[in-house]
Amino acid sequence: MLERTAIPDTTEAELDHVLTAAAAAAPAFGALRPGERAAMLRAAADALDAAAGELVPIAQAESRLPEARCRGELGRTTFQLRLFADVLDEGGYLEVTVDTADPDWGMGPRPDVRRMLVPLGPVVVFGASNFPFAFSTAGGDTASALAAGCPVVVKAHPGHPRLAERTGAVLTRALRDAGAPDGVFAVVYGEETGRRAVLHPRTAAVGFTGSIPGGRALHDLAASRPHPIPFYGEMGSVNPVFVTRAAAAARGAEILGGYLDSFTLGAGQFCTKPGVLLVPEDTPLDDLVANAAGRAAAPLLNARVAAGHAARQGELVDHPATEVLVLGAAGETGWTPTLLRTDAEALLAHHEALLEECFGPTSLVVGYSDEEQLVAVAGTLQGQLTATVHAEPAEPVAARLLPVLTERAGRVLWNGWPTGVSVTHAMTHGGPYPATTSVLHTSVGTTAIRRFLRPVSYQSVPQELLPEAVRDGNPLDLPRRVNGRLETPRRG
Amino acid sequence: MLERTAIPDTTEAELDHVLTAAAAAAPAFGALRPGERAAMLRAAADALDAAAGELVPIAQAESRLPEARCRGELGRTTFQLRLFADVLDEGGYLEVTVDTADPDWGMGPRPDVRRMLVPLGPVVVFGASNFPFAFSTAGGDTASALAAGCPVVVKAHPGHPRLAERTGAVLTRALRDAGAPDGVFAVVYGEETGRRAVLHPRTAAVGFTGSIPGGRALHDLAASRPHPIPFYGEMGSVNPVFVTRAAAAARGAEILGGYLDSFTLGAGQFCTKPGVLLVPEDTPLDDLVANAAGRAAAPLLNARVAAGHAARQGELVDHPATEVLVLGAAGETGWTPTLLRTDAEALLAHHEALLEECFGPTSLVVGYSDEEQLVAVAGTLQGQLTATVHAEPAEPVAARLLPVLTERAGRVLWNGWPTGVSVTHAMTHGGPYPATTSVLHTSVGTTAIRRFLRPVSYQSVPQELLPEAVRDGNPLDLPRRVNGRLETPRRG
Repeated sequence: MLERTAIPDTTEAELDHVLTAAAAAAPAFGALRPGERAAMLRAAADALDAAAGELVPIAQAESRLPEARCRGELGRTTFQLRLFADVLDEGGYLEVTVDTADPDWGMGPRPDVRRMLVPLGPVVVFGASNFPFAFSTAGGDTASALAAGCPVVVKAHPGHPRLAERTGAVLTRALRDAGAPDGVFAVVYGEETGRRAVLHPRTAAVGFTGSIPGGRALHDLAASRPHPIPFYGEMGSVNPVFVTRAAAAARGAEILGGYLDSFTLGAGQFCTKPGVLLVPEDTPLDDLVANAAGRAAAPLLNARVAAGHAARQGELVDHPATEVLVLGAAGETGWTPTLLRTDAEALLAHHEALLEECFGPTSLVVGYSDEEQLVAVAGTLQGQLTATVHAEPAEPVAARLLPVLTERAGRVLWNGWPTGVSVTHAMTHGGPYPATTSVLHTSVGTTAIRRFLRPVSYQSVPQELLPEAVRDGNPLDLPRRVNGRLETPRRG
Repeated sequence: MLERTAIPDTTEAELDHVLTAAAAAAPAFGALRPGERAAMLRAAADALDAAAGELVPIAQAESRLPEARCRGELGRTTFQLRLFADVLDEGGYLEVTVDTADPDWGMGPRPDVRRMLVPLGPVVVFGASNFPFAFSTAGGDTASALAAGCPVVVKAHPGHPRLAERTGAVLTRALRDAGAPDGVFAVVYGEETGRRAVLHPRTAAVGFTGSIPGGRALHDLAASRPHPIPFYGEMGSVNPVFVTRAAAAARGAEILGGYLDSFTLGAGQFCTKPGVLLVPEDTPLDDLVANAAGRAAAPLLNARVAAGHAARQGELVDHPATEVLVLGAAGETGWTPTLLRTDAEALLAHHEALLEECFGPTSLVVGYSDEEQLVAVAGTLQGQLTATVHAEPAEPVAARLLPVLTERAGRVLWNGWPTGVSVTHAMTHGGPYPATTSVLHTSVGTTAIRRFLRPVSYQSVPQELLPEAVRDGNPLDLPRRVNGRLETPRRG
C-alpha cells in the first residue's frame, strides 16, 4: 500500500546542503574514466529494472497511466542508461582533438594544443508530468548529465512525488554501491525549491521538460542570474502532419487511422502528439469521426493537466474558424477525444491562435483546396519538435515541403507518426523556440550528453599532467581528431 | 587619404531591409554543398589579402595599431577563412549520424533516423575594438557563421567604422563574385542599430566580442526576446598566471620577462592579457620594475578604451591592498605600463575587487608565502578564458592546480603565455561566465562553427529527398557515425 502522506517541500537550507554536496562530488565524479561511469550507469539500470515491482504500481497510482505503459517506459529508461554507457565506452562523445606543435603552421608557430569536453558541474533536472520514468527522475536529462560526469539534483514533478522519491532512492543506492561519490544524486521537492535551485550559485545547468509558460519562466530566471547558466527547456509543439493529395488518394483511410491512434495515444499527452493534420478538403472524414467518437475515455495525468486541456480545448472549440467534429468530454474514467476542423485559408489567417499546443486528446483537421497552401502553412510554423509529411514518391510538393519543415523542426518524418520517439544515436528531440529554449541541442538520443559538457584546451601541458583522454598513445583508445584528421581507435 | 566624414547610423528601415535580405538568402546559402561554401571562403580570403594595401592603412589610422600588427592580423584573418574552408571540405563538422532501421533495437523497433547539423539562419556579429580584422568584420564570428551556412550582418565597431565599411565591401563583392546569394553579408552602424538587430525577428543568433557590461546587456536582450536566440558573448578575463616556487627558483628572471612582454603586448589590449601573476613573495622584482618603467608608451585604441583603462587602473591603484610598483601614465604617444603588487592573503580577502579585468597595460603581481595559497586563489576564480601554470616537472602543487583551473578556464597553459591565441582544431577560446556568456562554445578554432548549427533528424525519409550528406553510399564522402560506429571516408 502506498503511503498517502504528502512529501514536504525541501527547505532552503536542505536545498543548499544538497547542491553543496553535489558540487563537492563533481570533481571526483567528473574525473572518473568514461568506462567507470559507464559501469555506474549500468548498475543504475539494473537496480531500476530490479525495482520494477515496487516502482510500476506507484507510477500507475500517481500518473493514472496503465501498467503496460509504465513497464514499457521503465524499460525505455533503463535501455537509455545502458545505451549511454555504451557511448561512454566508445568515447567519441569527448570530442578529443590533438594538435601537436607545428612551427610551420600558417598563422605562425603553433603550440601543442589538446581539446576535450569536461563536465559542467551540478545539473538541476525538472521532471515531466507525462513520462514519470523516461523524462523524470532517472530519465533522459538525468542519464545525459550523469553520463557527462555531472551530479544531478532532480526537482520532483508534483504529479508523481512518491515515484520520484522511490526512484531516487533506488538510483542513489545503486550509484553509491557502484562507487560514485556521495552527493552525486538527489531529489528535491516544491515549486519554490525549483526556482531556488535554478538560481543557486552551485547549479551549473538546468534540464527541463514541460509547458511553455513553465519553461519560459525558468529560462528567464537562468538568464537573469549574476552568472547565467545553460537552460535546456523542452516545451511545446503542435507537430503538424501534411498529407498530400496523392497520399490521401492512395491510402487516406490508413492515414486517418494512424492519425487517430497517434493523437489519442496516452490520451494525447505527448509533446510529439500530432495537433494538426492537413488533408485535401474533399477527404472523407466519416470513418475518422465515427472512430474518434467511439474511442473510450482515457484518464489525464492529473487535475492540473485536465484543467489545462479543458481550457485550451475550449479555446479551440470556441474559435470562430473551427467546427467541432467530435466533442470530447470529461467523464468518470477520463476524457474522450475531441476532433475539430477548419480550412487552410482560416488556418493561415489565424495561425497564431490555432497553431498553439493543446496538451491532451484534441486535434485539428485542416482541409486544403490547393497544395500551395501546404507550403504556405509550413512557412507560418513556429519551432516544432516534429513535422511530418505523408506523400507518394516523387511528388514535387513533398520536395518543396521538406526544406521548409527542416528550417522549423528538429525532426522531419515521412509517412509515419511523431509519437514514440526512439532513443538512438541519430535522434533529435528538439527544435527552434518554442519547441525548446536551446535550439542547438536534443533531449533524446545519445547526443543529449553534449548539453552538459564544455570544451577545455590544454596548451603545452606535459604528458603526465594531461587527462588520459588527450595523452599521446591514446591510452583510452578513443576516436580522436589528430592534426585535423579523424582517427578511429584500433579496436574499431 | 581617408575620408573623414562620419558614417551615419543605419536606420531602422535599412536594418529591416538588410535582415530581410539575409533571411531570404539563408535557404540557398545553407543548402550549398560544404565544398561550394569552402570555395567562397577561399575567394573571400584571397580578396582580403589582395586588398591589404587599402585596408591596412585604414586599420592603422582608426585603431592606432602599428602596421606590422595590422598586416599580421589580416594574415590571421585570411588564414582562418582558409582553415574553415578546409573544415568544410573534410565535412566532419556536419556530425552526420545514420541509424538504419532495426527491428531488434532494445527499446522497440527503430525507424531509419539520420541526423546532421544545419545552419541557424542570419547571424548578427558585433566586432571588437582591439582586433579590427581578426575579431571584426571578416573575423572569427563571421568566418564561423559563413562556414556554417549562415548569412552575416556585422554591427561595425565604432572604433573602426571605415575599416568595417571597406572590409565589408571587399567581402561582399568577393562572396557575390564567387556565387553566393545576394544578402548573405552586410555591415550596419550604430549602437541602437545593434540593439535592434539583436531583437529583430529575422536574427537567429548573435556573436559578440567586447566588454562584460556590453556583452551582458546584449545577452539579456537576446534572452528577453519573444523567441530567445543563442547569444555568444566573449567578454572579459583576468588570465591568472601561477608560478611555483621551483619555477621561480629555476627561471624567475625569464618568467618575469615573459610576463612583462605578455601583459604589455598590444598595450595590454588583449582579452588574454595576464592581469595577475602569482610568484613567491621573495621573488626579486627589481629588474621587472626597471624594465616596466623603461617601456615606451603605446597608444590605446581610442579615447573610450583609454578612459576605461584609466578608471579601472585608478581603482586598482587606490585599492588599500595594493602597492604601486610602476605607475603608468598617459602621455602624448600613449600609455606606459602600470605594475601593482599585493600579497596572496590580501588577494584572497579582496578577490572580487582585485580579480576584475583591467583592459590595457596594467597588471598585478601577487606575492605568496605558501604554495597552498596558489590552490586557494585558483579556487576563488570566476570563469576565465585562460589560466597558466609555470612549474617544474613532477611538482605536486602543479598537479593539484591543473584540475582546479580546468574547472574555471577554457584554456589551461603550461610554461607559456596566454596572449597570441592560435587558430587550430583543438583551440578553445571560451570559458565559464564572465569569460563568455555561453560556456559550451569557443569563438576561436574550427569548432567555433558549431555555434551556428543545430541538429535535424530525418525519420524514414526516402533517399532521393534526403540531403546528400545523410544519403546511403555517402556521396559527399564525409566522416559519419553509422549505427553507432564512426566511419572515416575512403579518401582517408
